[in-house]
Amino acid sequence: MKIIGTGKALPKRLVHSIEIDELLNKEHGWTQKTSGVIQRYFLDPDSESVSTLGAQAAVQALENAGLEANDVDLILSACGTQKQILPGTAVFIQKELGLGDSGKPAFDINATCLSFLVAIDVASMYLESGKYKNILIISADIASVGINHEHPESFSLLGDAAAAIIVNNAGESDNSSLHGFKLSTYGDYSSLCQIRGGGTDLYPTKFDKSNPQPFLFEMDGMNSYKFVSQHLSCFVDSLLSESKQDISSIQHIIPHQASKLGMALVKRQLSIKDDRLVSTLEKYGNTISASIPITLHDAICSGHIRRDDKCLLIGTAAGMSLGGAVITY
Amino acid sequence: MKIIGTGKALPKRLVHSIEIDELLNKEHGWTQKTSGVIQRYFLDPDSESVSTLGAQAAVQALENAGLEANDVDLILSACGTQKQILPGTAVFIQKELGLGDSGKPAFDINATCLSFLVAIDVASMYLESGKYKNILIISADIASVGINHEHPESFSLLGDAAAAIIVNNAGESDNSSLHGFKLSTYGDYSSLCQIRGGGTDLYPTKFDKSNPQPFLFEMDGMNSYKFVSQHLSCFVDSLLSESKQDISSIQHIIPHQASKLGMALVKRQLSIKDDRLVSTLEKYGNTISASIPITLHDAICSGHIRRDDKCLLIGTAAGMSLGGAVITY
Repeated sequence: MKIIGTGKALPKRLVHSIEIDELLNKEHGWTQKTSGVIQRYFLDPDSESVSTLGAQAAVQALENAGLEANDVDLILSACGTQKQILPGTAVFIQKELGLGDSGKPAFDINATCLSFLVAIDVASMYLESGKYKNILIISADIASVGINHEHPESFSLLGDAAAAIIVNNAGESDNSSLHGFKLSTYGDYSSLCQIRGGGTDLYPTKFDKSNPQPFLFEMDGMNSYKFVSQHLSCFVDSLLSESKQDISSIQHIIPHQASKLGMALVKRQLSIKDDRLVSTLEKYGNTISASIPITLHDAICSGHIRRDDKCLLIGTAAGMSLGGAVITY
Repeated sequence: MKIIGTGKALPKRLVHSIEIDELLNKEHGWTQKTSGVIQRYFLDPDSESVSTLGAQAAVQALENAGLEANDVDLILSACGTQKQILPGTAVFIQKELGLGDSGKPAFDINATCLSFLVAIDVASMYLESGKYKNILIISADIASVGINHEHPESFSLLGDAAAAIIVNNAGESDNSSLHGFKLSTYGDYSSLCQIRGGGTDLYPTKFDKSNPQPFLFEMDGMNSYKFVSQHLSCFVDSLLSESKQDISSIQHIIPHQASKLGMALVKRQLSIKDDRLVSTLEKYGNTISASIPITLHDAICSGHIRRDDKCLLIGTAAGMSLGGAVITY
């Protein structure tokens, strides 16, 4: 598997942390200091949507790959939330790309913040099977619509974004590869990070303005951190061992941009130096499923990640899940 | 790939079509005559949920396969709608199965009514890769919460249900196999069958009691029928040809139980005799993603489908998509 193009798209509205300070009635500097996020982007619902952003990121990935939309053989939407209850988001991105009458297969994969990594794993199997040549993966999430403005910890952290990649089979002279992928899920911890309502348990028609909370994002930061700190080190050891890789051979670590504390934990538990860990938290916040691919995209575009570099993509997700992939770019 | 166990679960509340007649202010018999549905099941939200039903179906599939929950290596939720906005439904089913602290991977695949077929295709690749031995696929949907009671065509048709299967690698002496799978998506037709609200485009917090319509199921039956009639025959020809199968060698056709008219169209366009087409529409209605696997389960349990029988699983989905798989059971 070879990543032949990447792209990103951000909403037009840039929101500095001072704006959040003011909305939270905190002193200037509180949000940035606490969360490590300097700025994030929030969608304008009148002119933008998850599918327009997703398609915009896809178009950039196609350009970088030197392909036309029509060269894509499979469209995987790998988002943590959906555009509509029904159908999934992939079909809307297909339509935005001008492929809405093409018959090209499009479906959704969802593992919340780890959707992108699961989609890479599924895509690599499709490539190996020879069924598809060029696979487009889009991860896009609009966190801003479900933020609880009275919960400073998550309000200061979340942002909206889209990212996309195109993968195909590596040529014989290419070193590009997916060396391994691992996902570990712990459903007992599903309440640590969730939006309780909006599905069939508490359908939107039950929404009550006097109690919006069940329809807004809930995060138990302390216990999520505790959960991750208990599992991360062992998880990474298994992933590296199953991938037949050693941490010393990894040039870049692209973590899910979960939080400042979460990323510090990755550094500490993996005993890695700062310059191997790539961060975009300060400029985008935590953008759910887009977080890993947008960080990958920026690091590739800036020349930080180069061909043949070995990368560990690693993260946690609501669920709770831990997930990781080792690739040679 | 071999299906080694199947299961189903239905809500406790059985709803006869006469009840729907009364709610719709129609004469007794109208609903059954128009839709072909004699009865369907609606969930009791106080004691049942998509994950309890999904887990119940999974337990039955495990029993049929002679396995314990702990023997499962991967859990794929393949539903058309979700339990909550976040996280996906697979983690909740994992938890219900007592595996919530197991770390066993669990994620969601969504292609609306065709989610089950896409999951079978993904599962077969995982089995071939040797990564997982026993894969549990659950398709469960609770249509009743989003039904528009003022739209007789869809109200008379939809029902709630869950179905599950376990697949593993076929042994050397087994004929069981997935011969081929195909998905064709046409995003230009996404408005034919949808729930517009509830996602990030029209978030649940925008729900307004005076205008619930955007949060309820919408179906343009006539144009959906027209779309399918234009594409089905050609789609099945491609699927069979890519699977290297001939329609005459297929013993059973398990269609998505979309509607009476839709299933008559399958019969006509495939020029098949009635006894090859398996129907459960009359007893469950259209149960979205559960529709194909629950029909498969019933046909296996009744002895109608036997080992080594060749089956065509075929359907359409909101999106719009056409999907099909050819298997030897």
